[in-house]
Amino acid sequence: MSHNVIILGASGYTGAELVRLIATHPSMNIVALSADRKAGLQMGEVFPHLRHLALPKLQKIDEINFNRANLVFCALPHATSQAVIRTLPGDIKVVDLSADFRLRDPEEYARWYGKDHAALDLQSEAVYGLTEFYRDQIETARLVAGTGCNAATGQYALRPLIAAGVIDLDEIIIDLKTGVSGAGRSLKENLLHAELSEGTHAYAVGGTHRHLAEFDQEFSALAGRPVKVQFTPHLIPANRGILGTVYVKGDAHVIHDTLTEAYDDEPFIEVLPFGAHPSTRHIRGSNFCHVGVTGDRVEGRAIVIAALDNLTKGSSGQALQNANLMLGEEETAGLMFAPVFP
Amino acid sequence: MSHNVIILGASGYTGAELVRLIATHPSMNIVALSADRKAGLQMGEVFPHLRHLALPKLQKIDEINFNRANLVFCALPHATSQAVIRTLPGDIKVVDLSADFRLRDPEEYARWYGKDHAALDLQSEAVYGLTEFYRDQIETARLVAGTGCNAATGQYALRPLIAAGVIDLDEIIIDLKTGVSGAGRSLKENLLHAELSEGTHAYAVGGTHRHLAEFDQEFSALAGRPVKVQFTPHLIPANRGILGTVYVKGDAHVIHDTLTEAYDDEPFIEVLPFGAHPSTRHIRGSNFCHVGVTGDRVEGRAIVIAALDNLTKGSSGQALQNANLMLGEEETAGLMFAPVFP
Amino acid sequence: MSHNVIILGASGYTGAELVRLIATHPSMNIVALSADRKAGLQMGEVFPHLRHLALPKLQKIDEINFNRANLVFCALPHATSQAVIRTLPGDIKVVDLSADFRLRDPEEYARWYGKDHAALDLQSEAVYGLTEFYRDQIETARLVAGTGCNAATGQYALRPLIAAGVIDLDEIIIDLKTGVSGAGRSLKENLLHAELSEGTHAYAVGGTHRHLAEFDQEFSALAGRPVKVQFTPHLIPANRGILGTVYVKGDAHVIHDTLTEAYDDEPFIEVLPFGAHPSTRHIRGSNFCHVGVTGDRVEGRAIVIAALDNLTKGSSGQALQNANLMLGEEETAGLMFAPVFP
Amino acid sequence: MSHNVIILGASGYTGAELVRLIATHPSMNIVALSADRKAGLQMGEVFPHLRHLALPKLQKIDEINFNRANLVFCALPHATSQAVIRTLPGDIKVVDLSADFRLRDPEEYARWYGKDHAALDLQSEAVYGLTEFYRDQIETARLVAGTGCNAATGQYALRPLIAAGVIDLDEIIIDLKTGVSGAGRSLKENLLHAELSEGTHAYAVGGTHRHLAEFDQEFSALAGRPVKVQFTPHLIPANRGILGTVYVKGDAHVIHDTLTEAYDDEPFIEVLPFGAHPSTRHIRGSNFCHVGVTGDRVEGRAIVIAALDNLTKGSSGQALQNANLMLGEEETAGLMFAPVFP
Repeated sequence: MSHNVIILGASGYTGAELVRLIATHPSMNIVALSADRKAGLQMGEVFPHLRHLALPKLQKIDEINFNRANLVFCALPHATSQAVIRTLPGDIKVVDLSADFRLRDPEEYARWYGKDHAALDLQSEAVYGLTEFYRDQIETARLVAGTGCNAATGQYALRPLIAAGVIDLDEIIIDLKTGVSGAGRSLKENLLHAELSEGTHAYAVGGTHRHLAEFDQEFSALAGRPVKVQFTPHLIPANRGILGTVYVKGDAHVIHDTLTEAYDDEPFIEVLPFGAHPSTRHIRGSNFCHVGVTGDRVEGRAIVIAALDNLTKGSSGQALQNANLMLGEEETAGLMFAPVFP
Repeated sequence: MSHNVIILGASGYTGAELVRLIATHPSMNIVALSADRKAGLQMGEVFPHLRHLALPKLQKIDEINFNRANLVFCALPHATSQAVIRTLPGDIKVVDLSADFRLRDPEEYARWYGKDHAALDLQSEAVYGLTEFYRDQIETARLVAGTGCNAATGQYALRPLIAAGVIDLDEIIIDLKTGVSGAGRSLKENLLHAELSEGTHAYAVGGTHRHLAEFDQEFSALAGRPVKVQFTPHLIPANRGILGTVYVKGDAHVIHDTLTEAYDDEPFIEVLPFGAHPSTRHIRGSNFCHVGVTGDRVEGRAIVIAALDNLTKGSSGQALQNANLMLGEEETAGLMFAPVFP
Repeated sequence: MSHNVIILGASGYTGAELVRLIATHPSMNIVALSADRKAGLQMGEVFPHLRHLALPKLQKIDEINFNRANLVFCALPHATSQAVIRTLPGDIKVVDLSADFRLRDPEEYARWYGKDHAALDLQSEAVYGLTEFYRDQIETARLVAGTGCNAATGQYALRPLIAAGVIDLDEIIIDLKTGVSGAGRSLKENLLHAELSEGTHAYAVGGTHRHLAEFDQEFSALAGRPVKVQFTPHLIPANRGILGTVYVKGDAHVIHDTLTEAYDDEPFIEVLPFGAHPSTRHIRGSNFCHVGVTGDRVEGRAIVIAALDNLTKGSSGQALQNANLMLGEEETAGLMFAPVFP
Repeated sequence: MSHNVIILGASGYTGAELVRLIATHPSMNIVALSADRKAGLQMGEVFPHLRHLALPKLQKIDEINFNRANLVFCALPHATSQAVIRTLPGDIKVVDLSADFRLRDPEEYARWYGKDHAALDLQSEAVYGLTEFYRDQIETARLVAGTGCNAATGQYALRPLIAAGVIDLDEIIIDLKTGVSGAGRSLKENLLHAELSEGTHAYAVGGTHRHLAEFDQEFSALAGRPVKVQFTPHLIPANRGILGTVYVKGDAHVIHDTLTEAYDDEPFIEVLPFGAHPSTRHIRGSNFCHVGVTGDRVEGRAIVIAALDNLTKGSSGQALQNANLMLGEEETAGLMFAPVFP
């Protein structure tokens, strides 16, 4: 059975990544693409790597006929996203890639994003889109909120450990290294090649990155009490990939066993042998997430490192995985392609 | 129908790329992988990006049972390749990715590769593997010789023009920019990151690159008289991708028309609108080749630029495309995935 | 003797590079820095790599007292540059890094830059700033026009050959590879890291790049008749460095001899041994230019390759070299530091 | 007064960096260069970026006449270094860049480096070369042991804090990101461009990196009791630069004040305003070290980030700074050049 899907915000990197992935999906059919400022153009003019595909022209959102669609991928900026999704026909399933529906507590949304949420009813209905942990709810959801790419990385390293109670909840540090495409195709001086290549720096130091809101919400819910991690992201000169180095207190072998067991049946999460560690190069362009564990020489401490591709497993691949579930397809449909290395 | 294939030389980049591509091929099944020095290891230990795949262990070639196989991909170094292929059972089809069977004239082989060919009978039977131009012969061939990656790039820009007689045959310059993976996974000082990143240089300047032998053979055959192009390759700090900037004398619009018509029905060759030019970023990781044409301000001259991924369309993707034909499969099977950008 | 200098346009890359170089110059003293939109900031806030230096705050141009200055470096955009320089006191020497005073023929300026020149008297007085070839005039000039960085690269490869009449003037092709900092710190989508890294493409194909105006002017003057070269620039994923691969018809050994002799006494131009070729990595961050020559296998043809750092020898280093001459200093003062590799 | 210096191990990156720096030093004169396997070559053949310099040919060590020299820089591998330095005339000052003389406790040396030390008398005499903290001893030392580049980075962030007792000594985590040149010019698969670019990974996870021996020695001595930090290095796709992100428990403002005061008079250590953080891009190619401090949202915790260039401040620049002191020169002689950005 074939599903008609629409992608809103197709002129950004996550939108383009959705098109890339769906291009070889066995049962999805793109019936409309939106891009406000680029309306009227062919997708191949905006993203020449997609020029070989027969795709609908880019349109403004209000020109789109949503009646033909089974599911909408919404890759719009936050705030815009909630405004648009509110207007969609109620029977269309929606996978949102923005931050708008990730936080269940409207006050937390207002605090981290600086304005009140304008679609509280939708927010209360939305399911958090970390597939491996919300699978059942996603299958029946109408609206799924894609997670932050950094938030996904940290959660793959930590959720089973927090759930199992095998680490100290007050001593978690996530030192994260991320490629530049996570910042999108926006024109900012600090995203220029000349500013970024050949070096690294930290940003949002001290606990100001918005993905912390997701860590707080999810880890606290898992633990049944407030959990506040430390989280410092760094920008590295690579286009794709996030490496999350997580410092925890706990028994490294217990930690490794816990993760191994938790992800045993997961098609996309690979726990490496004890002492081995992932590289972002080895998941590039794919929906896989690699996780490694080593004990530190300082007794009772361990390092857990997780790697995923921010554009794939961290956003558009995750979105497609969720869409598969929502549409009754095999969860892995169109997503089992191998990473691109070198 | 499922085909059993074997990959010899699986510990190099082209071998790994074959595994990556075949992993999602609808009808190929890898039954053996060889890697001399890494025999006994799992593929995922040598190439962690492939660790999620259920693959046979790496073996030495003489441990492999070839009887189960329909086709062998031979990704061994030249000279080794001819020695090994000679010993294979005569009913197994072979796609060779080395330089050993590209040249029809044994004297040319000896001249460019510094030693006599040791499998002349096989050489005479081999079909040159530039799929779009040798399709009929490849379908019935037992042994197909994969082309040089640089040689493929130049030929996609030039073959239709030489065949149509629309350019001056004595005034062809190919200025080529290539990523580093074309040099393989070998330990050479000039391939170190610290030596290569943040800069560019030419190599094999003046007409000493071995892929010139293929240009000479193919272009001369097409023209019916000797054609000797100029060819200067440059190394750029990128892992994948070749950009061939070709300077020719001829009418730019005739040239564009000739290329457009020649590739009109080709699934992988995209001729861009007149005046547009390709980027290696937009074919990365895919089997597509983009070609652009512009007229120069100097009358009667044109620039043709072709871009492809050296590991995919330039070697392993080409090999799979040829294997599809040899095995009676759809030529595009397993190869229509979109490029990975950014 | 110490010289007071002012840098206009200090918030761009060439402005910052001037500050970097002058920081260790034995006899120059920066007395003012302008940056319109960043006026009021410290240089170290705009360019943290310069934070250790005691520098005047950034000012708007009209806040600057020019009376204290011996020389002004003008690193403003073209058009702005001519408007500003017109208003400077007549006794201040000026090194302009923009395109405004490079072309002697006002019609050529209007044709390539799309508007009439607004300071024709200054234009007629300006000396073209390719130091090695205009040394005497620069020493006594009041206004020196810095060359285009690509134009400098091509001229170092070609001027002595055209002057000596050892190459065919109608068959010159410059295939140029340039790093990204030449495009400045401007916010353009195609300068983003995610758009640029890991690949290459040509731009301004077919003879539309404005630096062609300089080639035309200089080569025609040298030859005493019109010379129109072909010139195709490519962007490579590196911050600094230009490699110009120049295809010519002529005797390679005569060409090498001609260049060797021409540059024999030059402190910054290094002609490599016959058959050796430069890399942009080996001149990075320095004022050196490396030039190599090889004969092609096609008889009567040669390849000349020149490499320089666009921000140093291609603009700010050149500007300082010229300023040294204009101020009666040693030409090499503050410029003999070695390239930074790796 | 001019000093004659010799560089042993000139064919490695730290040796080449010494030559680069000394090339513009006001009072040092290179009288011999060694490189075992490249003996007989010109330095410019091994490192073309140094080809403009008039330098002695590379020699084998036993061909060198040490009598002419005031000081030897020894940039040899560890173990080799101690064997060579033992044989030098006793009146020559030595700056060693290897690990051989960093550890005062021979048992620690044996434990971390896997073999007994063979020059214990020299070891006992050696002064640890972190200039800012051993200045007085270095001035009168005959043998100074250059620090590990990672060890230097961590110490610039932490020494004043440990000395002042303002952080919890049992809760220090150093998450370090380093460019690839720190690994030298050695032929290892994991240093190839194709393996390294476009990604990141951790190595020596869990406390096995040898620079930990320096942290242990120095921090314990400062604290007057054992201090064992956690330290996880990561490789990033850049040639130069180390960023050390240090997680500590203590009052962030007290920490910032302590660092600001400690480095107030230091010419090369720049403490950024509270809340600002360094980038490796902004110290590239220079002898500067930038340090930033921010408080975490989790009360009582702070992040200190230090950045330096591993080849300059982390090894060869440090070596030159120490040599200046040993030879009675201005400490900053030849070292005040600005970083190269972009």
